[in-house]
Amino acid sequence: MDQKGFTRADVRDKLTGRARYADDLQFPGMLYARAVHCPHPRARILGIDAGEALAVPGVVGVYTARDVPGVNQGPQDKPMLAADIANSAGDGIAVVAAESQAAADQGAALVKAAYEPLPCVFDPEEALGAQPPVILYQADGLTDNVACRHRVVKGDVEQGFREADVVIERTYRTQRIQHSAIEADTAVVVPEGDGITVYCPCKFPYHIKARVAAGCGLPQNRVRIIQPAIGGSFGGKDIDIVVIAVRAAVVALRTGRPCKMTWSREECLLEGSKRHPFRLTYRVGAKRDGRITAMKIDGTADAGAYRSRSLATIWRAAVEAAGPYEIPHVDIHIRAAFTNNVYSDAVRGFGSPQVDFASESLLDELAQELGMDPLALRRKNILREGGTNATGQTMARVSIGKCLDRLEELFPLGAPVVTPEGKLRARGIACLHRGESYGAAARDADTAGTDVRAFADGSVGVYTSISEVGQGTHAAMAKICADILGLPLEQVRICPVDTAFVPDSGATAGSRGTISGGNAVRIAAGKLRDILQSAADGEDVAFRDGGLFRQNGERLMTFREAVGICHSRGIRTDAAGQWEAPRTGWDFEKHQGNTYYSFSYGAAGAEVEIDPVTGKVEVLDLLCLHDIGKIVNYPEACGQIAGGVAMAMGYTLTEELESREGILKNKNFDTYLLPTAMDFHRVRAVPLEEEAAENPLGVHGVGEASTALVAPAVANAIARASGLRLRTLPFTLERVRAALEKEEA
Amino acid sequence: MDQKGFTRADVRDKLTGRARYADDLQFPGMLYARAVHCPHPRARILGIDAGEALAVPGVVGVYTARDVPGVNQGPQDKPMLAADIANSAGDGIAVVAAESQAAADQGAALVKAAYEPLPCVFDPEEALGAQPPVILYQADGLTDNVACRHRVVKGDVEQGFREADVVIERTYRTQRIQHSAIEADTAVVVPEGDGITVYCPCKFPYHIKARVAAGCGLPQNRVRIIQPAIGGSFGGKDIDIVVIAVRAAVVALRTGRPCKMTWSREECLLEGSKRHPFRLTYRVGAKRDGRITAMKIDGTADAGAYRSRSLATIWRAAVEAAGPYEIPHVDIHIRAAFTNNVYSDAVRGFGSPQVDFASESLLDELAQELGMDPLALRRKNILREGGTNATGQTMARVSIGKCLDRLEELFPLGAPVVTPEGKLRARGIACLHRGESYGAAARDADTAGTDVRAFADGSVGVYTSISEVGQGTHAAMAKICADILGLPLEQVRICPVDTAFVPDSGATAGSRGTISGGNAVRIAAGKLRDILQSAADGEDVAFRDGGLFRQNGERLMTFREAVGICHSRGIRTDAAGQWEAPRTGWDFEKHQGNTYYSFSYGAAGAEVEIDPVTGKVEVLDLLCLHDIGKIVNYPEACGQIAGGVAMAMGYTLTEELESREGILKNKNFDTYLLPTAMDFHRVRAVPLEEEAAENPLGVHGVGEASTALVAPAVANAIARASGLRLRTLPFTLERVRAALEKEEA
Repeated sequence: MDQKGFTRADVRDKLTGRARYADDLQFPGMLYARAVHCPHPRARILGIDAGEALAVPGVVGVYTARDVPGVNQGPQDKPMLAADIANSAGDGIAVVAAESQAAADQGAALVKAAYEPLPCVFDPEEALGAQPPVILYQADGLTDNVACRHRVVKGDVEQGFREADVVIERTYRTQRIQHSAIEADTAVVVPEGDGITVYCPCKFPYHIKARVAAGCGLPQNRVRIIQPAIGGSFGGKDIDIVVIAVRAAVVALRTGRPCKMTWSREECLLEGSKRHPFRLTYRVGAKRDGRITAMKIDGTADAGAYRSRSLATIWRAAVEAAGPYEIPHVDIHIRAAFTNNVYSDAVRGFGSPQVDFASESLLDELAQELGMDPLALRRKNILREGGTNATGQTMARVSIGKCLDRLEELFPLGAPVVTPEGKLRARGIACLHRGESYGAAARDADTAGTDVRAFADGSVGVYTSISEVGQGTHAAMAKICADILGLPLEQVRICPVDTAFVPDSGATAGSRGTISGGNAVRIAAGKLRDILQSAADGEDVAFRDGGLFRQNGERLMTFREAVGICHSRGIRTDAAGQWEAPRTGWDFEKHQGNTYYSFSYGAAGAEVEIDPVTGKVEVLDLLCLHDIGKIVNYPEACGQIAGGVAMAMGYTLTEELESREGILKNKNFDTYLLPTAMDFHRVRAVPLEEEAAENPLGVHGVGEASTALVAPAVANAIARASGLRLRTLPFTLERVRAALEKEEA
Repeated sequence: MDQKGFTRADVRDKLTGRARYADDLQFPGMLYARAVHCPHPRARILGIDAGEALAVPGVVGVYTARDVPGVNQGPQDKPMLAADIANSAGDGIAVVAAESQAAADQGAALVKAAYEPLPCVFDPEEALGAQPPVILYQADGLTDNVACRHRVVKGDVEQGFREADVVIERTYRTQRIQHSAIEADTAVVVPEGDGITVYCPCKFPYHIKARVAAGCGLPQNRVRIIQPAIGGSFGGKDIDIVVIAVRAAVVALRTGRPCKMTWSREECLLEGSKRHPFRLTYRVGAKRDGRITAMKIDGTADAGAYRSRSLATIWRAAVEAAGPYEIPHVDIHIRAAFTNNVYSDAVRGFGSPQVDFASESLLDELAQELGMDPLALRRKNILREGGTNATGQTMARVSIGKCLDRLEELFPLGAPVVTPEGKLRARGIACLHRGESYGAAARDADTAGTDVRAFADGSVGVYTSISEVGQGTHAAMAKICADILGLPLEQVRICPVDTAFVPDSGATAGSRGTISGGNAVRIAAGKLRDILQSAADGEDVAFRDGGLFRQNGERLMTFREAVGICHSRGIRTDAAGQWEAPRTGWDFEKHQGNTYYSFSYGAAGAEVEIDPVTGKVEVLDLLCLHDIGKIVNYPEACGQIAGGVAMAMGYTLTEELESREGILKNKNFDTYLLPTAMDFHRVRAVPLEEEAAENPLGVHGVGEASTALVAPAVANAIARASGLRLRTLPFTLERVRAALEKEEA
């Protein structure tokens, strides 16, 4: 394996500060916009008085839902601007546009709105209970607060429990967090010709294009999405960007001037989408020898005020909740509730980190109950080649066993230790399987289009709408293209993402960027190679070292010359690639099916040290290994795992959005605590090349799996170190200290 | 024929001032550049002292040829910045970059350069004579000042003259003019990532891309050319833009900051390329009945200091010089000379206006000699279906006879008249054939790539690098696409020209935009229709009214639904089109060949009134009719003819760049006289639909043919009105008055 890898074309600009992000852009005559946010968690908007705001020098207009030219929202979806009723504190009700950001801010503060507060519900269990305080979307014909529900049924779970020697039941809770990209959500909308150009970061350009077009009442061929450099996505930069872009577009279309709207950090926390909080109750039955006979899972997630990507998140959570184990009898039921909290959307891993925390904590609890080694219990139950998972899918290319072997080798559990300073130290482990790409419940076909073009001088451009959100997928795609065409990497360039031109490659989501984008590049580059091959007039040639080589090793011509010959013959030297992932299917009646065409596997170990005086948990050593199939760029694979781990550390130890009665308590990063470099000791990111993945390139994604193992590994380490079983994330000082005190008491 | 046509998508923005041209663009941190021009027509640059310039507040740098990172010039080509020797007064020798245009201008004025003046030659005849004062490119190994030469030989011209009853010989001269687009030449270069983005008007984006990449030493996939709105080309916006863009790129690459360089109007006149001046001597022999037996043409053109597009211009002039006539014996020889005048390049019509003025003046002179009616003489000799032209090509789809019939019907010659005020009034006529597109002497294959994509909402984007220079070709391409897909025109949009994305469609030159671009759209849209047809699952459907219709007239589905079905099946809804024009060939040994795969035909009549006191020529009525085959958009076709006529009026009556010893005399539009609305009386632009052209769409271009007939028609009218035969363009007051005086004397 080439562990040296290659350098990404985008790093130099990002490191030197030369990269231009959307908020860096300036256009002549550009206006600045600021939203006015509803202060109530649920309220009828009785009236909006823009008089004082309009009197501020520099303010050019105040716009409300009435000014949205197209579709303001879908059913139970987040509106671009709340029209009649705001369902969440922070919902935008108006946009103030001004010649400067300061004037826009001042104007927004002076907009007076009259509200009639309405009944609310904040607790998802209460929302789904028999007597909820309010049915939020009764006006839409809904009879309960269920945003969505998913069920997985395998065998007869009650029979399974009857067969068990041991049955335990535990409840786990995960918190609300946010993406926390350093780049705030932003969009610059420039009216151009008969349409608009939107400069914005996003993870799914064609989705933004479609939604912004709908919001603006424009056909899609008149809405152009251009991605400048992106300062992080982490599953976000999607619906929030639609909302921001349409708000800016309202100003741009009304005034005919460019308009920038950048959320302040406070607005990102206040109005931006969040990770779904979950309550998950697991009941598990096992034989004395550790063989699990039954698992029943009941879960509730908080969708917040709008449905958004709850469907995909809850479905993924449901089909993955039983973990990477072969269990004969399973019954899983997870519902998401509408509440008047800020809305939930996809956050990196969407669904996996929540259920993996629960199921992998549960495995350790079951091991303890059975008096078994946690690793041995896992080995007893893990999925094997040809086995069936909880959804009834026959599994292939399963490498979870190899991951556990490698984990044991690199990270033996050992015994808990009390340090001379009285700190409690121990190791814990966790493992996972994770479905790749959209999965069977998605409406969209899992396709990616990518084009490749050779220019007259032999340089090559690749056209994709897979987003480079920092994960290095563009570099991987360039490498795949260069390898197929036998070119040095420098000769291939991924062109800027601009929906006016690049084909639809789908979402940069579900860890599918390199898989789907890469395979589309593979197809397009292969077609281009076939075209250029024609320059050899039937001779069998190999493409390497920038040339076309005869079978005897002699160079017939350079790549550039082949391009020239094609051009002289009137042959275009470009090719379109379309990758379609193998189809999957889900039976919504039987609650069974083939969920994903491919799964990735991984395992992690965490060594923690607990200060019993402060409750502070230090993660001294963190090993994360993921079988990612064929490795395209080793250092980047390590980097992506390390990045996922860093994000997961915040989820595990510090990050939590707290609200009371729907009002957010921590409004900025002074109270919403992201981990810093000081919180990391040893981190070992280990990409494994065990089993080629189920696609021609053989690659797995690792953008999300890496976020899901830290919390359970740390929870299990804490339990092994201190005997404390923490079932609620995050493990803050206060929570750990309180638990220690309770135990002492 | 639908004379109503349809409205172009770009007109509203252009009319309301909302269209953004390159010079309108602003980028944060942008620098402004101004060139320092050599004051000598030929000089060695001994040294450049930038000290005083650099002391100007705001000046950030002064750059010379040494700073050009790549190829500064090809052999005998115009350099980006003159390095050792400047060959023309006005050649750029340095670029001053500053924070403001004013500072750059001030800096440029303060750059001190030391020169050693070198021997010059200004007269092309002298340059090509036996003892030229200097061989300009002796250092390159050239032994004469021939920039290029072309010969056409048919039959035995001396034999032809022996067969003639009448032989006359006349010499005609045409002047140096310039494109005079209202938009000055300009480029804004923005360093982005590992490359540059160039915002500039141009007629051949991929050529600019290749040349700028070479000039900057960058691979072509790192140079992106974006076309904002274009304020006119007229055959220009090509090499001059390369020069300007590379100069701005030098600043951008050196400073890492965006840089704009816009030529002042004076610089456009001083350094910008010009139309080749010609001296053409015709010797023609004819039988008493008017049948032409022989034509011998000897011509000299002034290439100026650099070769540029002389090859294409001189070749076109040579192969068209004998006019639309079947002549058994022909010998044509035209040479272009290097001189120390400003360089010549393509100007709308390149080659045709010069030779058409000569040959059509000659026909009237021959008619006078023979005592024949000018129309009758032409009819006697015109090309007919299956006949052979001067280059030995067998002609098909010939409509010159129909054009003359229509001309006679609409514009009877009548008799000369003297008005009561003593003004001399008469009509004159002219006709032409003109080869379309690149022709046989071009190096590039005559191909155009164009892509078409249907978006999820059924809206369609067309991707082309054919430039919309004001001629309406984008609207025509949209219409062709909409018709094939059965969509309303509004549903189709031509996407911005951006070489990062659009395929190479070749040059918007040779009147090929709608022919080549349109046929490529036809192919791509046809392929897309085939793709969408698959949504009908084998049923035979017609695409119309935004839907797919069964043979029984029932609508099976909307166009949008067909797109959706394809997407759900993982099928991309885009298609690549490539049009290749039929191949032509030229035998450089035999001086014969098939010059162009297609010819267009036209005829014109001019009615003039000469004021014998002032010499002023008023063109009272001007009828221009062109058979353009299938008419896509009637009003635009009229507009294009009228635009060509307007440009030709300046060529005929007022425009002339005068220089003495290589130093330009008229430096701005106060002394270089463009015609204004006041110079036009009645103009009748008549597009004819006589013969479908030699391509599947059946369209001819008319961008250039319309520029070539005014001068000879006016010359012939003047001759008929006054007896004066003017053989030197333009027919200024002074020249006409002088000729009248000479005759009176």
